[in-house]
Amino acid sequence: MSTAQKMLDSYPKDLGHIDNAKLVACIEACTSCAQTCTACADACLSEPAVADLTTCIRTNLDCADICETTGRVLSRHTGFDPDLTAAILETCVTACKSCGDRCAEHASMHEHCTVCATACRRCESACRELFAALD
Amino acid sequence: MSTAQKMLDSYPKDLGHIDNAKLVACIEACTSCAQTCTACADACLSEPAVADLTTCIRTNLDCADICETTGRVLSRHTGFDPDLTAAILETCVTACKSCGDRCAEHASMHEHCTVCATACRRCESACRELFAALD
Amino acid sequence: MSTAQKMLDSYPKDLGHIDNAKLVACIEACTSCAQTCTACADACLSEPAVADLTTCIRTNLDCADICETTGRVLSRHTGFDPDLTAAILETCVTACKSCGDRCAEHASMHEHCTVCATACRRCESACRELFAALD
Amino acid sequence: MSTAQKMLDSYPKDLGHIDNAKLVACIEACTSCAQTCTACADACLSEPAVADLTTCIRTNLDCADICETTGRVLSRHTGFDPDLTAAILETCVTACKSCGDRCAEHASMHEHCTVCATACRRCESACRELFAALD
Repeated sequence: MSTAQKMLDSYPKDLGHIDNAKLVACIEACTSCAQTCTACADACLSEPAVADLTTCIRTNLDCADICETTGRVLSRHTGFDPDLTAAILETCVTACKSCGDRCAEHASMHEHCTVCATACRRCESACRELFAALD
Repeated sequence: MSTAQKMLDSYPKDLGHIDNAKLVACIEACTSCAQTCTACADACLSEPAVADLTTCIRTNLDCADICETTGRVLSRHTGFDPDLTAAILETCVTACKSCGDRCAEHASMHEHCTVCATACRRCESACRELFAALD
Repeated sequence: MSTAQKMLDSYPKDLGHIDNAKLVACIEACTSCAQTCTACADACLSEPAVADLTTCIRTNLDCADICETTGRVLSRHTGFDPDLTAAILETCVTACKSCGDRCAEHASMHEHCTVCATACRRCESACRELFAALD
Repeated sequence: MSTAQKMLDSYPKDLGHIDNAKLVACIEACTSCAQTCTACADACLSEPAVADLTTCIRTNLDCADICETTGRVLSRHTGFDPDLTAAILETCVTACKSCGDRCAEHASMHEHCTVCATACRRCESACRELFAALD
């Protein structure tokens, strides 16, 4: 069982109607995507063609920050606010879609962009599924 | 002149149609609100009535994370993405409104909640104004 | 293979003398510990005995921030700076030791503190091992 | 009076022996330096000579993360831990010195590096002064 799952299971109060499996999947996707985007920005920075990758780097940096914040908001259950949860999930979908699209453009040239595009797609999808499961 | 203003003025490329005064005001409001919410969560934690302030603390923590991320996204101009900018500004408005409302409820009892409510209102307003100025 | 490992393998330049297995283990431990500490702070907030857990919550919040930043610094390889790497690893050891000790005190009462203490010990140990492997 | 000062003044418990003026100065320097480094990384990314600035960008990104985390740790007073405070201040000094030195090298060519070097020097100095004032 993952640590994120164990933490959810040991939360002392009722979690309400949220879908626990989708919540854990989304937290883990956000945490992983944030790390991947941070590493992809840095890998792009070390490419000889860095001058062609500046928009990709910027998108990576935004996506890292937004995924990290989304993972934090989703890790808190006290005083759950469905409106704020919905808003940050929508923003995270936008960030992951943008970064995934951008990295996919370079995927044939840069293996790190292939890995990053996959992490972004997975996080985008996990955010959409959790969003759909919110009442 | 503020440091955020100096950094904007020294950006080497064209900033496009964005309203520079509103952008600087919004960056500064986000940075200040993030620090204030971090401090307010901690001040609530040291109140004898902490058990009544748990939702306020959670809202403070979310607002701190979201304001910080919004300030970072707004501090980047390379490869400007109006959709992502709009999405994070809307989320920041939601977070600041929620935190400002919550802190305002305790404002008569806790001076730190008065200061924090003011910072949240200012940041909410700065985000709304920048959002309205986006094309 | 983990995503952090794949990102390390696809870094376009030489990684130098750093121990890759220890680096990946440390990045993953930091990311996981950050999420666990964020969740533990929130779980403590929902305990009926929250008033007795305020130092634990504060330690959790610090540890979450420091582990997250350490994970970010370790995910960057361009312009590797051994002094800064050593400094942040030492700070992360201090934060994880403090948080692990604090959570261990409550472990018999709160399952989330048991899970969090384990995550902190694992991250502390991973940071110590990577630190020892730096030249 | 600054918001950081107001928050410190409204903290409900005793702050102990810490020097309040130096604490506020350090929190404000960290917050400002974090924003400046985020903006400088982005400005470097938009320079025609970006390929010569990759180490500077990486140093900016580390410094932004570390200053932000230091500002957060210093904004919390509940359960004050002098060892952790000292450790994060030392790490912040290392990050600011490294980033300030790097930006100073480019200061004659890039105005944003001049502004950033100044912010880093100011933050380094504020961290050193607060560190010296810790018992």
